[in-house]
Amino acid sequence: MDETSRTRQAVRDYVASAEQRDWRRFGELLADDVVYEMPQTRERIRGKSAFMQFNQEYPGDWHMEVRRIVADGGFAAAWIDARVGDEHQDACVWFDLSEDGLIVRVTDYWPEQYEPPSGREHLVERW
Amino acid sequence: MDETSRTRQAVRDYVASAEQRDWRRFGELLADDVVYEMPQTRERIRGKSAFMQFNQEYPGDWHMEVRRIVADGGFAAAWIDARVGDEHQDACVWFDLSEDGLIVRVTDYWPEQYEPPSGREHLVERW
Repeated sequence: MDETSRTRQAVRDYVASAEQRDWRRFGELLADDVVYEMPQTRERIRGKSAFMQFNQEYPGDWHMEVRRIVADGGFAAAWIDARVGDEHQDACVWFDLSEDGLIVRVTDYWPEQYEPPSGREHLVERW
Repeated sequence: MDETSRTRQAVRDYVASAEQRDWRRFGELLADDVVYEMPQTRERIRGKSAFMQFNQEYPGDWHMEVRRIVADGGFAAAWIDARVGDEHQDACVWFDLSEDGLIVRVTDYWPEQYEPPSGREHLVERW
């Protein structure tokens, strides 16, 4: 398996094991010194142990489904449909992997819905 | 050049030509029936002509710099540092390319800063 295929599989397994609450499998994908960042809140979590606890403690009956994974060598991006009850939110997640295929960095973006600015109604349709 | 390299180059050129306001080059990268979507506002723009006008009319002295491009066959994601004056905002952009290497779909996310929810201070640091 080449590096890109290995990266793609690791990201697939990351989402699947989180969705299944398979924390043993989830932990196997992470480097001990993994760094998790949420740039929108300027929050950072350091280390596998704290990052696993963050996921295990995350409130709500949350679910994640892959919309798309794009893998490129030791980097990847995942476009996720996250859901709590009937509430959906898309997430954009960036991954860095080590040479031995472990996830060393995860950067999460959670874009919120907002009202469009005026001035471009002549070009756009809404759905 | 393989498909992934071609896709990566097209996305690099997309950002560079927009940054340079090189609309001729920008237009050459797009399929005539390109679809642009902003899921956060549920806005959609159809067709190269309207999409180019949208970019040309976009207000403010905006600048874009690539933080990362991840390309995978005919798909790619770009992590962008967008700037207007001193205001920075990250963007996550998803690309679909046609078999002949033209951009047929662009999906833009503009995640905003927000205050973190309470309850995870024991795991996170702020920056």
